Amino acid sequence: MNKPMPDKSVHTVWHRATVTRQRREKKNAHKSVVIWFTGLSGSGKSTLAHAVEEQLHQRGLNTFVLDGDNVRHGLCSDLGFSDQDRKENIRRISETAKLLLEAGVITLTAFISPFKAERSIARSLMPYGDFIEIHCFCPLPVCEQRDVKGLYKKARLGEIKDFTGISSPYEEPENPDLRIDTNLLTLEQSVQQVISLLQARNFLSAAE
Amino acid sequence: MNKPMPDKSVHTVWHRATVTRQRREKKNAHKSVVIWFTGLSGSGKSTLAHAVEEQLHQRGLNTFVLDGDNVRHGLCSDLGFSDQDRKENIRRISETAKLLLEAGVITLTAFISPFKAERSIARSLMPYGDFIEIHCFCPLPVCEQRDVKGLYKKARLGEIKDFTGISSPYEEPENPDLRIDTNLLTLEQSVQQVISLLQARNFLSAAE
Repeated sequence: MNKPMPDKSVHTVWHRATVTRQRREKKNAHKSVVIWFTGLSGSGKSTLAHAVEEQLHQRGLNTFVLDGDNVRHGLCSDLGFSDQDRKENIRRISETAKLLLEAGVITLTAFISPFKAERSIARSLMPYGDFIEIHCFCPLPVCEQRDVKGLYKKARLGEIKDFTGISSPYEEPENPDLRIDTNLLTLEQSVQQVISLLQARNFLSAAE
Repeated sequence: MNKPMPDKSVHTVWHRATVTRQRREKKNAHKSVVIWFTGLSGSGKSTLAHAVEEQLHQRGLNTFVLDGDNVRHGLCSDLGFSDQDRKENIRRISETAKLLLEAGVITLTAFISPFKAERSIARSLMPYGDFIEIHCFCPLPVCEQRDVKGLYKKARLGEIKDFTGISSPYEEPENPDLRIDTNLLTLEQSVQQVISLLQARNFLSAAE
């Protein structure tokens, strides 16, 4: 039998090449993962996420932090703070985190993300094991006393509606991958806890 | 005079660290950029984007392709094809591309993106010079003859509304950074044109 002639039409020349997440991880020599920080306003999510990123970056890893600073004025600039908009906010952030995960980036998200249902959806979007939920725990009175952005004061005065902890619920994670008491630990201790978890789960070793 | 006492409160310990795009680019040893492919359905945008990505990946660069496959069912799953939804679709893609750019990733987007106004908005979001517009040109009759996804047939039958080129306009870029005639060039030639442009603009050399 003759071998079939190779098809030289434009269509077969224009075949689809695919760089996969696996190939990116191999090139990067590390796996990607989504590290999802949740907690009250003022509990230290964003600060901790950036401090963990600093450590990972210094180890040569590809990292990115999604937080209010780079999402609320961009991707989610059309959204407010109603329950529906908060849900859509978290949905878009989850989908974006998934894209970054696929791009081989260790992605840290720092949003209050007060509702269990939305955090569950975020987790369900990622391949099993690639979503790490970290609860930044800090008692409400301490967060309110810190009030770094002056938001609690405004919420108490009724100037901000649906403010988590004051006029909107925060549903605590029952089984987070890690719970960090940011009122008792220093930033360095908190960072170390996250790094230790990543090490224990083999995210900081070379990808296979 | 005494030196001011260092403030040892929790607040100053919990300072904000920042990994910037510049630091990521330095670590990666390459710059990031958004490469925006625009053109009719069937003009070869997605195939070309993936083929360029393959080349860049093989050179060790961090890359990602945003296209219908990973956006329409995720980040933009709530959007249809009305003018308003298409506009929002491109807006979200632009914002996501901006995040990936910031994350140090060479980001290739492959969407029809038929309207000049939206492509202008996308460009305006990125720092000057970090947005490369590539027009995948292919005559409509050729795209329609290819009809890889069978969409032109459906559009002609009126089964798809607002289909670009048939029942919705495609506004050709007047001054794209590159125009590739995918009807005349092979995929390899097309890829080479993109790579040459990236080289000419110093995107493939080590970041400063």
